[in-house]
Amino acid sequence: MNQKEVILVVDVALLGCGGSMPMPNRFLSSLLINYKGRKILIDCGEGTQVSMRILGWGFKSIDIILITHSHGDHTVGLPGLLATIGNSGRTNPITIIGPKGISDIIKGLRVIAPYLPYDINIIEAESKACDFKITSEGLKITEKNHEISISNLELEHSSACLGYSLYINRKPKFDVEKATSNLVPKILWSRLQRGEVISFEGNKYEPEMVLGDERSGIKISYITDTRPIVAIPEFIFGSDLFICEGTYGDDNDLEKAKINKHMTFTEAAELAKAGNVKELILTHFSPAMLEPGKFLDSAVNIFENTVIGSDRLVKTLVYNK
Amino acid sequence: MNQKEVILVVDVALLGCGGSMPMPNRFLSSLLINYKGRKILIDCGEGTQVSMRILGWGFKSIDIILITHSHGDHTVGLPGLLATIGNSGRTNPITIIGPKGISDIIKGLRVIAPYLPYDINIIEAESKACDFKITSEGLKITEKNHEISISNLELEHSSACLGYSLYINRKPKFDVEKATSNLVPKILWSRLQRGEVISFEGNKYEPEMVLGDERSGIKISYITDTRPIVAIPEFIFGSDLFICEGTYGDDNDLEKAKINKHMTFTEAAELAKAGNVKELILTHFSPAMLEPGKFLDSAVNIFENTVIGSDRLVKTLVYNK
Repeated sequence: MNQKEVILVVDVALLGCGGSMPMPNRFLSSLLINYKGRKILIDCGEGTQVSMRILGWGFKSIDIILITHSHGDHTVGLPGLLATIGNSGRTNPITIIGPKGISDIIKGLRVIAPYLPYDINIIEAESKACDFKITSEGLKITEKNHEISISNLELEHSSACLGYSLYINRKPKFDVEKATSNLVPKILWSRLQRGEVISFEGNKYEPEMVLGDERSGIKISYITDTRPIVAIPEFIFGSDLFICEGTYGDDNDLEKAKINKHMTFTEAAELAKAGNVKELILTHFSPAMLEPGKFLDSAVNIFENTVIGSDRLVKTLVYNK
Repeated sequence: MNQKEVILVVDVALLGCGGSMPMPNRFLSSLLINYKGRKILIDCGEGTQVSMRILGWGFKSIDIILITHSHGDHTVGLPGLLATIGNSGRTNPITIIGPKGISDIIKGLRVIAPYLPYDINIIEAESKACDFKITSEGLKITEKNHEISISNLELEHSSACLGYSLYINRKPKFDVEKATSNLVPKILWSRLQRGEVISFEGNKYEPEMVLGDERSGIKISYITDTRPIVAIPEFIFGSDLFICEGTYGDDNDLEKAKINKHMTFTEAAELAKAGNVKELILTHFSPAMLEPGKFLDSAVNIFENTVIGSDRLVKTLVYNK
């Protein structure tokens, strides 16, 4: 008998695609990830909670907030969002990860939301990966059996800034032949598949006795507010989805990009190519760039599977067969 | 010869009409006043700068920001707006007036905008009126010849909260008969009318020698986040425009209004009537109230000239003849 396999998916929504300041028809760059109903948010500029409300995925299930850096276009919306999450009835703690110094920024902004009905655990990341699994309180840091691993990379911007990469583990397939040859009683199959270690009628049974080979999971990488440093391709390598800043579309703005520590579409596409990612979504457009689509070709010529980001662009990522 | 009189007007734009949190189709309560091209802003919640951008009156000319109280729906947008004003090229100082404790709130929020190309003068108001006149640096505090006087009133909310009343002076009319009978040389007429005191050919000439009686100016009052306290009618008395919170439209929500320190439409209309104002605009609607217009009658039955506020509702106020 073959155990029924549930194909898990991850939904990703680009909440906004602007940089610098909120504009009438463009929210600020921010990403919302939905994994089994639990949410991870990356960055929270002014208005991010409004885009979240339009999207309609809810506020109460936000377990993790990743902040790239302290600049206002990535943080101003945080205290208002924390208050709104409080109003949603959440009492479970939230984990916030950010670069060195983010605790002081959050402390400052929380002057208008000093009392919340839940705790906030702030981690100043410094290159250390954090592993999470779903618990009764949502996604929480774990030392074993993690479902998601969140890595970070120090970028090159005008303030301390982190890129993030999320890896969603995929459990090995149930292997009927292996289970049968290991003489595992059928009554234990589903519990072993879920990862339990079981003592039964004097014998010890482990998940490995019924599971096949490791299978590749889903990798999502998010890089904004940086120059294209050499460490990025390795960090994002093989991502199913690579969301990357393209503050400037026009290659003639390369000098501006260098001065302001940002990237052009061409530079983002070169990273996508070097990182062998599956798809690139461009975001964090300069307010002066009204039609980023005009410059899509500069990126596509280097990396074909490039998409111009737009507010509430939603992608559903499915495990490869 | 009659001196040509320029009839001055004041433009007032309600930037948003929501309370509590920013919603997809409703910005948070905030008012922008345009007096001779100089701007005064009341409150700055998350998204206020986006509504200002849609309105299109510019950022550089904002000389005064009045903050009613520290709650996030009235302050979260402040650091982002200050940064945007900086980007607009402003170098002249800005005056911010707010209740006791507002300095600490602004200090906290400015963690993301610590460096600005202009100075900020913060006044914790405590019932003292501030007088302003237009200078080469915009509206600045003055001790004489003020053009605008800004009064405040301590309200009854869950945190220290101020109501504001702005009185825009109207200069007396030029009186030809008076100027002639006072033997004022014609060459001095326009300078005296502008308020100068002049020594000319051994004689001293004062504005009063060419000006008629005092004329009533324009009064705008703004009251949000309070219960209807007895001091309000006198404070707003005779306002040409009274912008007042009506968090709840339904009279059945009176208990909620009492608990949350807000008002119903009925209560706001009673204040407008008692204060003998010319027009009432309701604002600061609860996010739960999707169609405030449904409850307009409760207000109109008490005070006829009531308008339901809407985002970027603009009124132009002209001096009475």
